[in-house]
Amino acid sequence: MPSYTAPTRDMDFVLHELLNVTAANIPGYADLDRETTAAILEEGGKFAAQVYQPLNAVGDREGCTLENGVVHTPPGFKAAFDALRAAGWTTLDCDEAYGGQGMPHVMGIAMGEIFAASNMALNMYHGLTHGAYSAIRAHGSEAQKRKWLPKMVSCAWTGTMNLTEPHAGTDLGLMRTKAEPQADGSYAITGTKIFISAGDHDMAANVVHLVLARIPGAPEGVKGISLFIVPKVLVNDDGTLAERNAVSVGNIEEKMGIHGNATCVMNYDGATGWMLGEAHKGLRAMFTMMNEARLAVGLQGYAQAEVAYQNAVAYARDRLQGRAVTGAANPDGPADPIIVHPDIRRVLMEGKSFVEGARALTFWAAELIDRAERQGDAEADALASLLIPVIKGVLTDRGFEVAVQAQQVFGGHGYIEDNGMSQFVRDARIAMIYEGANGIQALDLVGRKLAADGGKAMMGFFALVKGFIKENEGDANLKADFLDPLKAASKDLQTAAGYFVQSGTKNPDNALAGAYDFMHLFGHVALGLMWAKMAKVAQAALDDGRGDAGFYETKLATGRFYMARRLPETRTLLARIESGAKPVMALAAESF
Amino acid sequence: MPSYTAPTRDMDFVLHELLNVTAANIPGYADLDRETTAAILEEGGKFAAQVYQPLNAVGDREGCTLENGVVHTPPGFKAAFDALRAAGWTTLDCDEAYGGQGMPHVMGIAMGEIFAASNMALNMYHGLTHGAYSAIRAHGSEAQKRKWLPKMVSCAWTGTMNLTEPHAGTDLGLMRTKAEPQADGSYAITGTKIFISAGDHDMAANVVHLVLARIPGAPEGVKGISLFIVPKVLVNDDGTLAERNAVSVGNIEEKMGIHGNATCVMNYDGATGWMLGEAHKGLRAMFTMMNEARLAVGLQGYAQAEVAYQNAVAYARDRLQGRAVTGAANPDGPADPIIVHPDIRRVLMEGKSFVEGARALTFWAAELIDRAERQGDAEADALASLLIPVIKGVLTDRGFEVAVQAQQVFGGHGYIEDNGMSQFVRDARIAMIYEGANGIQALDLVGRKLAADGGKAMMGFFALVKGFIKENEGDANLKADFLDPLKAASKDLQTAAGYFVQSGTKNPDNALAGAYDFMHLFGHVALGLMWAKMAKVAQAALDDGRGDAGFYETKLATGRFYMARRLPETRTLLARIESGAKPVMALAAESF
Repeated sequence: MPSYTAPTRDMDFVLHELLNVTAANIPGYADLDRETTAAILEEGGKFAAQVYQPLNAVGDREGCTLENGVVHTPPGFKAAFDALRAAGWTTLDCDEAYGGQGMPHVMGIAMGEIFAASNMALNMYHGLTHGAYSAIRAHGSEAQKRKWLPKMVSCAWTGTMNLTEPHAGTDLGLMRTKAEPQADGSYAITGTKIFISAGDHDMAANVVHLVLARIPGAPEGVKGISLFIVPKVLVNDDGTLAERNAVSVGNIEEKMGIHGNATCVMNYDGATGWMLGEAHKGLRAMFTMMNEARLAVGLQGYAQAEVAYQNAVAYARDRLQGRAVTGAANPDGPADPIIVHPDIRRVLMEGKSFVEGARALTFWAAELIDRAERQGDAEADALASLLIPVIKGVLTDRGFEVAVQAQQVFGGHGYIEDNGMSQFVRDARIAMIYEGANGIQALDLVGRKLAADGGKAMMGFFALVKGFIKENEGDANLKADFLDPLKAASKDLQTAAGYFVQSGTKNPDNALAGAYDFMHLFGHVALGLMWAKMAKVAQAALDDGRGDAGFYETKLATGRFYMARRLPETRTLLARIESGAKPVMALAAESF
Repeated sequence: MPSYTAPTRDMDFVLHELLNVTAANIPGYADLDRETTAAILEEGGKFAAQVYQPLNAVGDREGCTLENGVVHTPPGFKAAFDALRAAGWTTLDCDEAYGGQGMPHVMGIAMGEIFAASNMALNMYHGLTHGAYSAIRAHGSEAQKRKWLPKMVSCAWTGTMNLTEPHAGTDLGLMRTKAEPQADGSYAITGTKIFISAGDHDMAANVVHLVLARIPGAPEGVKGISLFIVPKVLVNDDGTLAERNAVSVGNIEEKMGIHGNATCVMNYDGATGWMLGEAHKGLRAMFTMMNEARLAVGLQGYAQAEVAYQNAVAYARDRLQGRAVTGAANPDGPADPIIVHPDIRRVLMEGKSFVEGARALTFWAAELIDRAERQGDAEADALASLLIPVIKGVLTDRGFEVAVQAQQVFGGHGYIEDNGMSQFVRDARIAMIYEGANGIQALDLVGRKLAADGGKAMMGFFALVKGFIKENEGDANLKADFLDPLKAASKDLQTAAGYFVQSGTKNPDNALAGAYDFMHLFGHVALGLMWAKMAKVAQAALDDGRGDAGFYETKLATGRFYMARRLPETRTLLARIESGAKPVMALAAESF
C-alpha cells in the first residue's frame, strides 16, 4: 500500500529560503516565521499521513453511492472530515471576520498540497467550499456574508460551483438554467447542472451551491448569466436549518478516478436562490476566483506527482532486479535494488525535478495573489493572471505524466489496483480536464493574457528573467548550468511570442495552433527560472556553510537535471509553433 | 458509446501501395492480391465491429471472476470467441501442416490490429495462443507439434506464457519454479507464476501453458532455465482430454484495465509438464518469439490510439461549443462543432499522423519477419530485431499519449466511464508495461541491438534512410516537406549513436541514461522514413491521376504535419542524450 510523507523540509526551503516570506512586506507575512510555519506543516503533515492518506485507497475502491436521493461517501470519510474540522484546518487562510485564522494564501496552498497529495478526492470537499467561500466573500452583500460564510469557513456546510450543463461545458454562453425573480427578492432556479463535484454528500448538514443561471430577458450568451446562492437546505434568519430546497441529485457519475468525490447531476426544480453580485455579471464573479481555483488544480497535478514519486522511490530502493552495469551495489543480495539502473534514475529525477520546481512556482503564484489581495498590487495581480493558465495546464499535464512514469517503475505491479499507483494516475487525469480543460488554458494564455494591457505582464515576466540573469551573470557556479540554459529557453519564448504577434495578426489560427505548445514553452521558462533561483539560494547556503549541506547539494543536482534534460524541450516547442497553422488546419473536417 | 470502423482503405494503401506486397518476392506474398486482402480485411472489419467491439465495454465493466477455482469471462465473450473460431480467423497466418491457412505474418498483423482495436482484452486470448503456437512450432519435437498445434491453431485450446514470478519480473535469473524429471520423461513442475494473461477462462476446453522453470542442478541465473509445456488438462495419446493437471488459479488480479482478460496467479503443484526445446535454453526459446510478441504489443499501442482517435473525431464533429475564430462554420446552429478549433485539430492531427505512421512501420516490420522466416533473409531478421524494441516502446508510449489526448477532446465527458474513452486509456496503459517494460526495450535497443554484429543492422538502417533521400532528392514535392526534415532527424540519430560509442565506452551509464531518449529518437526517424515513403507514393498517385485524389492529398497533409510538428523533437532528445549520465546519476540513492 502506498504511503505519504509531507515534504515539509522542501516547503520550508521554498517559503523561507526562496520566497523569504517574513521579509516580503505583505500584510500577514511577518507572522509566518519559520517556527510557526514548521509547526503548521508538521502538524498538517501528520494529520494527512495518519487520517487522510489511509482513506485514499478506500475512497477509490468503495466510491460514493446514491441511495434514495442521498449521497453516501466512502467509509471513514465522515470521521476524517470531522477530524479536519475539529482541528481547524478548514479555517486556516479564511477571513477572521468569519471565523478564519486569517493566514495568507501561500499557507493555504502549502497545506492544500499536503491534503491533495494524501487524499485528492476527500480534499475536494473542503477545496470547493473554499472556492465558494471566496466567491461569496468577494461578491456577497454583508448580510449574505454573515449568513453563509462562518458555516463555510468551518466546513459545517460545504460549497459547490455549478457551471456545466450537458450541452454547455466550455461554452457557457449556451447555458439554459433559468432564474425567475420572486416577489420576496429571491429567485426560482430551474435547470440541470452536471459534473458538480462534491454536489452532495453525508458529511455536512448543508451544501451551498453557487449556480450560474439566466434571468428571463437576459442578454444572450455569456453576458446574460447571473450567479446565485442555492442551498440544499433553506436557512432561517437565525441561522438554523429550515426545509429542504427544491434541489436534488439526479445521478452520480462513474468516473475514471476521484471515486471518493461525488460528481453529481444536480436538478433544480424551482429551487430558491439569491443573487450573488450583480445581474448578468455572474461569469465575471466566477472569474474573480478563477486564479484561486486554477492554481488549486495545478497544485493537484503536482501533488499527485509528488505522492506517486515518493512511492516510486520507495519501490525502487526495495525491489531487487538485475545488477548495476558499473558493478554490483548489493553484492550479498540476489540482485541490486532497481534504483541503481540509469533508466530508473532518469524517471525518478524527472519526478523530483518536476515536483520541486512546480512547488516553487505554485507557492510564488500564491505569494503574488497575496500581494494582489492584501496590498492591491496590480502588477502582482497581472503577473499571477498570466502565470495561472501556465500553472494549471503545465503542472497538470506534467503531473499526470510523472504519475504515469512513477507507475511504470513498478512494472506489472503498477498495473494492479491494490498497489495504489493506478489510482494516482487515474486521479491525476481529471486535473487536466476540469476547471477549464488544458486546451482552454492555452487559449486563455495566448488569446487573452498574453496581449492583455499591451502585453505588459508578459514583458514584466521577461524583464524578471532578464534581470535575474544579468544580476547573477558573474556567478560561475550558476552561469553554465543554470543561467545559460534559462537564457536560451527564454529567448525561445520571446521568439514564439514575437511569432504570434506577427503571424497571428495575419491569421489568428497561427497563434491558436501553437497555443498549447506556447503554454508548455512558458512552463519550461517559469520552472527554469524557479530552478535558477533555487540554485542560487542553495549555492549561497553551501558557501555560507549553513549546515544541511546534503539538502543543498541535492537541490543543485536536481536543478541541473531540469536544466540539462527538460529545458531543451523549448527548441522543439518553438519549432512546432513556428510551423504555424498550415500543418494543423490543412484537412477538411470530413477528411479525418 | 464508442464505435470502431476498420481502417481498410489505409491498410490497403500500406499493403499494396507502400509495401507493394505482391511484388515483394516473398513466398506466399504473390497470393496477397488486392482483391484477396480487401475481402479479408472487409470481412474481418465487419466481424470486429459487429462482434468484438460491442463487447469491449462489457468486458471492462463486468471483468473476469474467479469462482471455486474457475475463471469466468464476461458475458458474451464465449459466444464471440466461438464465432471467431467458427469463422476461421484464428488460423489465418498459421502453418497449413497444423490446420492453418498459411498466410504471411503481415496479414496476421493487419487483422491483429483490427481485433486489438475492437476489443483488446478479448483479442489477447487468441494473441497469446498464437505466441505459444509459434514457440511450440519453432522448438517442439514432431510429436509435440502434432499433439498440441492443431488444437491451438483452431483455438480449441488456448495458450499462455508463464515467465514472471513475484520476485522475478525483468530479472528472470531469479526465477525459482522447479521442474523435476520423472521416470517417464515428463517433469513435475512446482512453483508460482504471476501476471499470466489469459491464464484460465471458460472459453476453451484446455489451456496450454508454456512455463519457464529450473531443473535441479541447473546453472544459476538465466542460463539454467528451461521451457515446459504444461496443460491445464492432460491429454491422452489419441488427443482426447484426460484428467486435470496439478495446476490451479490462485487468484485473478484487479487491474487498471483489460478487465476482460484474466490476469492469473498460477500455482503449479507438481504439475506434469514436458520440456520444449533443449534443457537450460528456455530463455533462448522464448526469445525466438520475442520479435513476434513485441511487435504484437506495439500494435496494441497504436490500435488503442486508432480507436480512441476515431471516437475523438466523431465527437469533435458532433459537439457544438464556441465559434471558429476565423468565422462561424455552423452559423445556423447555436455554436460550431469543436473540430473547427485549431487546438482540437492539433490533437486530431497528432492522432492521425501517429496512427498511420505506426501502421506503416508495423506492417513493414511484419514484412521483414516474413522475409526472415520464409526466405531465411538474415539481413531482414537483423533489421526487424533492431526495429522491434523501437516499435514496442515508442508505439505503446505514443499510443497511450494519443489515447489520453483523444479522451481530452471529450472534456469532462471523457472522464466518465460510460463514454468509453477512459477504457482506451486504461487498456493502452498495459502495453507500455508487459512483454518487457519500455525501459527494458530501450536497454535492449542500446545495450544489445545497436552494437550487435558490429552495428551492422543500425548501419543498414542509416543506409536505407540515406539511400531513400538520395534517390528522391530531385523531387521538389518531397524535398522541403519530407526529405530535409528526415535528413536532419536522421543526423540527430547518428550523432546520438556516435555519442554512445564514444562516451559509452568510457562510462556505460552515459549510454544507459540516454537509452530511453534514443529509443524515441529512433522512433521519430523510423516514422519519418515511413511518412517520406508514403508521401512519395501519394504524390505519384496524384501525378498519375490514379483517382481517389482526396485520400492521397490527405495522406500528404498528414505526413506534413508529422514532419513539421513531431519530428523536431529529435533536437530535444539529442540534447538530453548528450547531457550524459551526470545529471541522471548525480544523487545518492538515499537523496531522493
